[in-house]
Amino acid sequence: MRVIFRPEKSEWEKIIARPTIDAEVLEQRVAEILHRVRREGDSALKALTAQYDGIELENLAVSEEEFIEAEKQVTTELKNSLETARRNIEKFHASQVEEVKMVETTKGVFCWRKSVPIEKVGLYIPAGSAPLFSTVLMLAVPAKIASCKEVIMCSPADKEGKINPATLYAAKICGVDKVFKIGGAQAIGAMAFGTESVPKVYKIFGPGNQFVTEAKRQVTKFGVAIDMPAGPSEVAVLADETAEPAFVAADLLSQAEHGVDSQVILVTTSEKIISETLAELEKQIEKLPRREIAKKALENSKVIFFDDLDTAVEFLNEYASEHLILAVEKAEELADRIINAGSVFVGNYSCESAGDYASGTNHTLPTNGFAKAFSGVSLDSFVKKITFQRLTPEGICNLGKTIETMAEAEGLHAHKMAVSVRLEKLRQEGGD
Amino acid sequence: MRVIFRPEKSEWEKIIARPTIDAEVLEQRVAEILHRVRREGDSALKALTAQYDGIELENLAVSEEEFIEAEKQVTTELKNSLETARRNIEKFHASQVEEVKMVETTKGVFCWRKSVPIEKVGLYIPAGSAPLFSTVLMLAVPAKIASCKEVIMCSPADKEGKINPATLYAAKICGVDKVFKIGGAQAIGAMAFGTESVPKVYKIFGPGNQFVTEAKRQVTKFGVAIDMPAGPSEVAVLADETAEPAFVAADLLSQAEHGVDSQVILVTTSEKIISETLAELEKQIEKLPRREIAKKALENSKVIFFDDLDTAVEFLNEYASEHLILAVEKAEELADRIINAGSVFVGNYSCESAGDYASGTNHTLPTNGFAKAFSGVSLDSFVKKITFQRLTPEGICNLGKTIETMAEAEGLHAHKMAVSVRLEKLRQEGGD
Repeated sequence: MRVIFRPEKSEWEKIIARPTIDAEVLEQRVAEILHRVRREGDSALKALTAQYDGIELENLAVSEEEFIEAEKQVTTELKNSLETARRNIEKFHASQVEEVKMVETTKGVFCWRKSVPIEKVGLYIPAGSAPLFSTVLMLAVPAKIASCKEVIMCSPADKEGKINPATLYAAKICGVDKVFKIGGAQAIGAMAFGTESVPKVYKIFGPGNQFVTEAKRQVTKFGVAIDMPAGPSEVAVLADETAEPAFVAADLLSQAEHGVDSQVILVTTSEKIISETLAELEKQIEKLPRREIAKKALENSKVIFFDDLDTAVEFLNEYASEHLILAVEKAEELADRIINAGSVFVGNYSCESAGDYASGTNHTLPTNGFAKAFSGVSLDSFVKKITFQRLTPEGICNLGKTIETMAEAEGLHAHKMAVSVRLEKLRQEGGD
Repeated sequence: MRVIFRPEKSEWEKIIARPTIDAEVLEQRVAEILHRVRREGDSALKALTAQYDGIELENLAVSEEEFIEAEKQVTTELKNSLETARRNIEKFHASQVEEVKMVETTKGVFCWRKSVPIEKVGLYIPAGSAPLFSTVLMLAVPAKIASCKEVIMCSPADKEGKINPATLYAAKICGVDKVFKIGGAQAIGAMAFGTESVPKVYKIFGPGNQFVTEAKRQVTKFGVAIDMPAGPSEVAVLADETAEPAFVAADLLSQAEHGVDSQVILVTTSEKIISETLAELEKQIEKLPRREIAKKALENSKVIFFDDLDTAVEFLNEYASEHLILAVEKAEELADRIINAGSVFVGNYSCESAGDYASGTNHTLPTNGFAKAFSGVSLDSFVKKITFQRLTPEGICNLGKTIETMAEAEGLHAHKMAVSVRLEKLRQEGGD
């Protein structure tokens, strides 16, 4: 890790810059895949799956037998853990249910807003170096709380044509309606356009490699919504002298092991923490099966020293990290000053992996600085909030003149007339 | 208007299809404009403004004197109307403030979510055939309730280099920090990238022509968020025999007068309403200054007759209209069955223009069928919802095993270790 002492503000922009990828070749390839899926449907999906994943599939959908088989292969211990995680995620996301509040803005003018489930949603679950069954919980649980009518899922199969058993089991306990063995850009195309086997959905969720990410970006052109733009995963740890170097090191490593492009940053006000954390990193990294990935990620990672926490917080708000761990004495006080982050972990015992799996918060979060304008996935992501209004005759009488004046000033006379004809009718009735 | 009787479900897809535009030429031109603004800043903005709007501007920013001058030009009547509208919009959007709810998902595991304002937002206000000062209220009022730190606005100036006085006055009473005389794709580029005069923002809001819409789409590639994808404005009116043909006609016309590409649909269960509404349309349209626009829009519009309200509602949910007026006897009951719409107007006295201007609901709404997955602009649009969690030592002890089991099953050992080192520390302390 590169250690940077007291960087000037003029240097911050360079330090917080995320890696950019030249997307032009990628764009073209993904566009071709999407076009093919749109035109040829299932036969394109099967051909692309043979080409990219090296497997020949007769049926794209996971069968009932495969679900039963998967359930047998998941240990009781993992089942219990999944159930605990599912329950916590459910509790937290259920707290996001919004009640309908009726507001009478002017006497006789009633306005309200209602959350209505997005009818059809598609979840993408990658299966590269790690089977991400936790992401199934993170997406399917809020989809079910929202009461989405159709929840489908795509995930690539392995060389034997199977999806990881824990992934299938998680899908089952969360009530996912259908699972398809499709990966990559073709999976996103299938859910965006629909094929003979795969139903078309209105919104697509989930992480993925650069093909998946680019495909999600491209299908928005066709009116399909997506959860959020994506980039490599990130953690920033803020540590003062009360932090535990062993905890800090483990937290940095749990981000670093995700991929060689993981973004890992330690911001600290303590030189002692720097040396002790670096020593811990060296010790802990050797225990990891994925140490080669973690080492590469750490090579691009930074330790940044500031003299005071105020500047550190200012820097972190500029960075807008996906995950931010506050390993400082006054963690709760500092938490109130965080204005840009995906999810914040407050205090020494709040490790990122708690939120990744089981505490209840969602782990689908904005990376790449997007936390400045985007929220992570929540119950909100699975609903539309439709506004309603009802004007009584009294309401239109009270507000009519205001609307007429504004409509006229905007030169929109039919807008004015829509009020005038109603006021006229009421005058006639009043005169009867 | 073309009248379609009892269309079969197989025909619905064709009936509800929105016009598509070939975007390739547009894409290229907008990309060039954005590139130029990004590279050359203010000088590009001035050159493009001279080229497209035919005006030479020395200063892009509206001066204090111009604001004072504008205020003088707005009539007291319009000022009062703007104030009434502003107050209602504020009341309704203030009701969307979300309280922080702390949830203890497992004993010692606390999760919460906090709405934090997006620091810098940019509003685009078009000024083509109509000065849309109402849109200033719709965007700036929730931005202020959210406490966005910097709220800027771009709007094209007229041939005299002036922005419509009511637009400027609305910006002033809503607390917009800075207004710039820039229109089109170049305005979107200015706010996305920042120039010498125009601050870079994190999210861009507002309607516009196809250049603006395409520019908003393109800047998302650079990490800038936008309110929502856009398309031509739409209204659908559902009318049974209790509807008032004069009201229905005026409502259809207030959509039709927006532009020749406006989408206007009447769905009804009453043949009498059809003939009477068509007669009213002919009568009312002649009174409109914008009748030529309205006539063209109506040529592409449809009246659809169904035998029963159930089928009508099913059709309207497929259509997913931006605005939906329920001019039926059991309007409130039917409102509960609407699952896809931007904003719903319940009952004969709830005209769209009430929501367009002054009732309090937002008029920036999803068009083009996007209402199936998108919400209109609300207070939510101006905040990120950051999640927080705090685990006490008891919390990590209670949840630790669950996290370890899941992390190991996903093959992410550093994730597991982040818990193990903490549990180990607590065991040591407990043993002390």
